[in-house]
Amino acid sequence: MKIGVFGTGMVGTTIGAKLVALGHEVVLGSRTRENEKAVAWARGVGKGASHGTFADAAEFGELLFNCTNGKGTLDALQAAGARAMQGKILLEVSNPLDFSKGMPPTLFVSNEDSLGERVQRAFPATRVVKTLNTVNCQIMVDPSRLPEPTQMFVAGNDPEAKRQATSFLREQFGWQHVLDLGDITAARGLESYLPLWVRMFGALGNADFNVKIVRAGG
Amino acid sequence: MKIGVFGTGMVGTTIGAKLVALGHEVVLGSRTRENEKAVAWARGVGKGASHGTFADAAEFGELLFNCTNGKGTLDALQAAGARAMQGKILLEVSNPLDFSKGMPPTLFVSNEDSLGERVQRAFPATRVVKTLNTVNCQIMVDPSRLPEPTQMFVAGNDPEAKRQATSFLREQFGWQHVLDLGDITAARGLESYLPLWVRMFGALGNADFNVKIVRAGG
Repeated sequence: MKIGVFGTGMVGTTIGAKLVALGHEVVLGSRTRENEKAVAWARGVGKGASHGTFADAAEFGELLFNCTNGKGTLDALQAAGARAMQGKILLEVSNPLDFSKGMPPTLFVSNEDSLGERVQRAFPATRVVKTLNTVNCQIMVDPSRLPEPTQMFVAGNDPEAKRQATSFLREQFGWQHVLDLGDITAARGLESYLPLWVRMFGALGNADFNVKIVRAGG
Repeated sequence: MKIGVFGTGMVGTTIGAKLVALGHEVVLGSRTRENEKAVAWARGVGKGASHGTFADAAEFGELLFNCTNGKGTLDALQAAGARAMQGKILLEVSNPLDFSKGMPPTLFVSNEDSLGERVQRAFPATRVVKTLNTVNCQIMVDPSRLPEPTQMFVAGNDPEAKRQATSFLREQFGWQHVLDLGDITAARGLESYLPLWVRMFGALGNADFNVKIVRAGG
């Protein structure tokens, strides 16, 4: 499959490398075509991996991943272009973390809105599915690194897009438990979990964890 | 032990009844001494259970539970009185849920502040421990109703108060896994988990669940 990945940070490069390892062709998109990190990533990953602008990645991908820093997400997607993203599924992985006031970060959008909703409003013809933002990127692409199956979530307005995203997460990354939380407003819940995640990270001493839902009678 | 419980809703009455069943003496506090729900509760629970004003409960308790509705928490605690709560451990269970704009609820304080912090600021001589707010009240007092041990958290400024709260949660209610998330600012994380909890509740169809932390190598 041809996949466009926006963002050259840890999340974008980890997801991009995994996708190439699975046999997909990936364009890693960033602001400039010759972004150093993207060039080095493509060289390191090899066949199937290339780099380009956000617009290049958007044009290329039949499926898109937004792995940009939350603060830069809307600008990055504007650069990618509504036309190129039209009708496509965008897995929206970013978090609205604001580190400007120090640690732990706060959220620059929360409670009555979310970054997932902002993205969907800005690109109404793109099928936004909020997912993967609740775990570290190593776990995103390899949930089996944890000793038990844990929980992944999807939220979005397009049921068929969520079904396809869920299948992709299961078959490609190995997510056995994907819970549909409802429409894109559920991104509020997924993003406002981050302040708790950050505290758990602090208390546990590393990011190599996720939660499993335990139910009565389950 | 003599325990004061503030609030006559599901949470207060469930915690109060459990405490009495464990052999403690409980005063369930509310705005008025003859609150109907508190009177009925005390009659139903029997020996060890009584009712009174918030101030009565605060005076009576060596340990205090705040189980009031988040919107009414600060007023209730003002009525309880700083003097009566001085030096005591207050297990702060409330959530800042705002149902005024319909379902799902939003939070009336979040992100850069929390209800737990507001309580601690308003009552600096009380040893506030935020806890139990992340699960349904049946699970609060009986985590073994779930088929595996799940996670409970504490947050607060007083390490000794957190140690005592943790022991109490373990020995009285059966919480095997209690994670200390840090000072009272970690209440932000515990409270901002609620929007995700509410969505999980909606997707799962009932509130009889909690999360377990799964760690790599764990």
